[in-house]
Amino acid sequence: MSGKRPRVSEAEATAGNGILDRRCFLAAGSLGSAAALVPLPVAAADGLAVEPWMTEPGSPFVGYGQPSKFEAKVVRTFASAPGTTGTGSSRSPLHQLDGAITPNGLHFERHHDGIPDIDPDAHRLLIHGLVNRPLVFTLETLARYPMETRIAFIECAGNSGSLYQKEPASLGAQALHGLVSCAEWTGVRLAILLDEAGVDPRAQWLLAEGADAASMSRSIPMAKAMDDAMLALYQNGERVRPSNGYPLRLLLPGYEGNMNVKWLRRLKATEQPTMTKDETSKYTILLPSGKSLQFVFPMQAKSVITRPSPGTSLKGRGLYEISGLAWSGNGKITRVEVSADAGKSWAPAALQEPVLAKALTRFRIPWRWDGGLTVLQSRATDNTGYVQPTREALVAERGTKALYHFNGIASWAVDEHGELRHVYG
Amino acid sequence: MSGKRPRVSEAEATAGNGILDRRCFLAAGSLGSAAALVPLPVAAADGLAVEPWMTEPGSPFVGYGQPSKFEAKVVRTFASAPGTTGTGSSRSPLHQLDGAITPNGLHFERHHDGIPDIDPDAHRLLIHGLVNRPLVFTLETLARYPMETRIAFIECAGNSGSLYQKEPASLGAQALHGLVSCAEWTGVRLAILLDEAGVDPRAQWLLAEGADAASMSRSIPMAKAMDDAMLALYQNGERVRPSNGYPLRLLLPGYEGNMNVKWLRRLKATEQPTMTKDETSKYTILLPSGKSLQFVFPMQAKSVITRPSPGTSLKGRGLYEISGLAWSGNGKITRVEVSADAGKSWAPAALQEPVLAKALTRFRIPWRWDGGLTVLQSRATDNTGYVQPTREALVAERGTKALYHFNGIASWAVDEHGELRHVYG
Repeated sequence: MSGKRPRVSEAEATAGNGILDRRCFLAAGSLGSAAALVPLPVAAADGLAVEPWMTEPGSPFVGYGQPSKFEAKVVRTFASAPGTTGTGSSRSPLHQLDGAITPNGLHFERHHDGIPDIDPDAHRLLIHGLVNRPLVFTLETLARYPMETRIAFIECAGNSGSLYQKEPASLGAQALHGLVSCAEWTGVRLAILLDEAGVDPRAQWLLAEGADAASMSRSIPMAKAMDDAMLALYQNGERVRPSNGYPLRLLLPGYEGNMNVKWLRRLKATEQPTMTKDETSKYTILLPSGKSLQFVFPMQAKSVITRPSPGTSLKGRGLYEISGLAWSGNGKITRVEVSADAGKSWAPAALQEPVLAKALTRFRIPWRWDGGLTVLQSRATDNTGYVQPTREALVAERGTKALYHFNGIASWAVDEHGELRHVYG
Repeated sequence: MSGKRPRVSEAEATAGNGILDRRCFLAAGSLGSAAALVPLPVAAADGLAVEPWMTEPGSPFVGYGQPSKFEAKVVRTFASAPGTTGTGSSRSPLHQLDGAITPNGLHFERHHDGIPDIDPDAHRLLIHGLVNRPLVFTLETLARYPMETRIAFIECAGNSGSLYQKEPASLGAQALHGLVSCAEWTGVRLAILLDEAGVDPRAQWLLAEGADAASMSRSIPMAKAMDDAMLALYQNGERVRPSNGYPLRLLLPGYEGNMNVKWLRRLKATEQPTMTKDETSKYTILLPSGKSLQFVFPMQAKSVITRPSPGTSLKGRGLYEISGLAWSGNGKITRVEVSADAGKSWAPAALQEPVLAKALTRFRIPWRWDGGLTVLQSRATDNTGYVQPTREALVAERGTKALYHFNGIASWAVDEHGELRHVYG
């Protein structure tokens, strides 16, 4: 059956320094062969060793499963503010994951006073303010409503924020960009409940408040609340985890993570934004002029190469797949280009179907490493036509003291040993 | 902002006994209001109680998260063969989940001698038999190959098997139908490696063998191996769990679960099927004639209502969402119809987008329960035109002693208290 497909060894470079055509591997309906592209595997001798796990019965069943003990290093890394245990963030190990879904145990977190241990039977959601009928919902009541499911990313506004700094931090994909994750969320569309409460036309904003000890609160534009906002009850099939808002979180697809209020207990319709501590003292973008941008909501188009990246070094010259994640809070990713020559030339990567709006999109492209020094970069475009900017362009606009909404092109330098490090391209 | 959308209270029944039009809730771009459809929530008094979890700092970060302690009942149920701890199966709690993805901790399992604890550094995959070049792969070698991602269900051939029996078992969705799950799988397309080994044209079959103590083995048609078969390394973003084949499983989208060999160690190209113990003593369909059907591979179109179902009773008359899962091993689900009058009338449910081939598809339809006795059913159709048969039609063909590939219509009876039970419709 071999020989019926085009040999990948015939593939031609489509960009500088070894980037090959994405169709080598991922063309719809026609699959290339990898022959001559990857190092040849060891030739078989006389079969395989009989390993110890084949000679005795394995482990029994358990009600709720866990990863292999050999994957114990695949964890979130986290840091807390001094004097606290639960004020800070944890980051997804992007370099150790593949696909687009983040498993629930590894979804990034940002907490402002730890993870509350909420009894779902005691939890209530209040909708009040400028509404005709203030309403209180129990979880049992909410379960009667029609639900919907969507796959969506959530990204902390502070993700990649250190790339604003003058010098590149010596960190990898997890530490730099790990405040983004993606899950399948299921819940009740917020507009249904707002319609039931009857929102006064003067109410252009909605205060969303969490049941954590920080009462983390944000002002949400009513237009977003009436559009695709969801009260999420399930995450990747099971109830939302405590670290992601159990028993109920607000999901605002594409908006900065902080607004996707966890442990949601209250929604108040208001004429103006409430100017909470969480949207005045934080989550604003400081500009060189000393003024700040406030209420910057959608996370703009962005991409990051996760493999290879620092911590997943190259093992000798030859063929590799460059793979990463792209996303846009404004819609669908339409194009991701990859460069293996520090941005001098670019080639389009394959996008893993289905490409969904406001969800992580996995991209892949084959690359033949010649063993030399180089810089790898990726650049995303979304269906509004927006193109991920260079770091230089972003810093020129916002300076080096901004913290939030960094979405510039990120760069990994490859050294002669195949080790990768973060650089400014 | 209320009143701009059609009121759902205007919705008309589209099938007998209270089934409403699916567009009440899920029409593309226009969302109905639930007013008058669900019981009114409690009116707000003077705000909300301050619960204890709002008065003290919450829990700190952990590297790998877990569900809430209040969800401790959401587990797989399992049974082992007498004298063993790891020969049997565990079932996903379908009635407690929503969406289409199954979280990794709750994916169903079927083991033939427990779960091996495989050291990935020692694990090898051998491709041999009728090939030009026998090859051995380490996991590190496999990681060099191009990967792909797809969302796919896996269903045990024995799922729902008790519905062949003469009397309906008094069980719910988990116990009857919980041997099906769905995940996002990422790995290397098998055809790439087979091309590299160079398969002899005489080889029409492939023996796949696991590294468990049972050496669970199945014969795979070469046509399937060269089509959409995958060597899966990642499940919902992280490495495949030990209970699902760590570090490597064969994924044959749509084919009976048993053929998706876990802990894959060997693929041997052969002219004929190998007739292993696992495909002769088991996984054949016994017919009334005493003959058996062997090598029945794709799981045919099927659906099951998960909510309401036994264990999730109705709380008084009024509006509910009927929701469930549909799937086909032969392609995409194109239609799911729901009946609330024991099959006398049917209405099409809304299918949650994106509808993917060989993946679970969530369906939903609103229903107004009048408090009376009735029987709920669902019926799936796939893009080959195949329609899920009645139980009667399936039993007429295969008798009551068959075990595998049951895909007939399942029925839940509703009593006057809103309790549900399994019946033959």
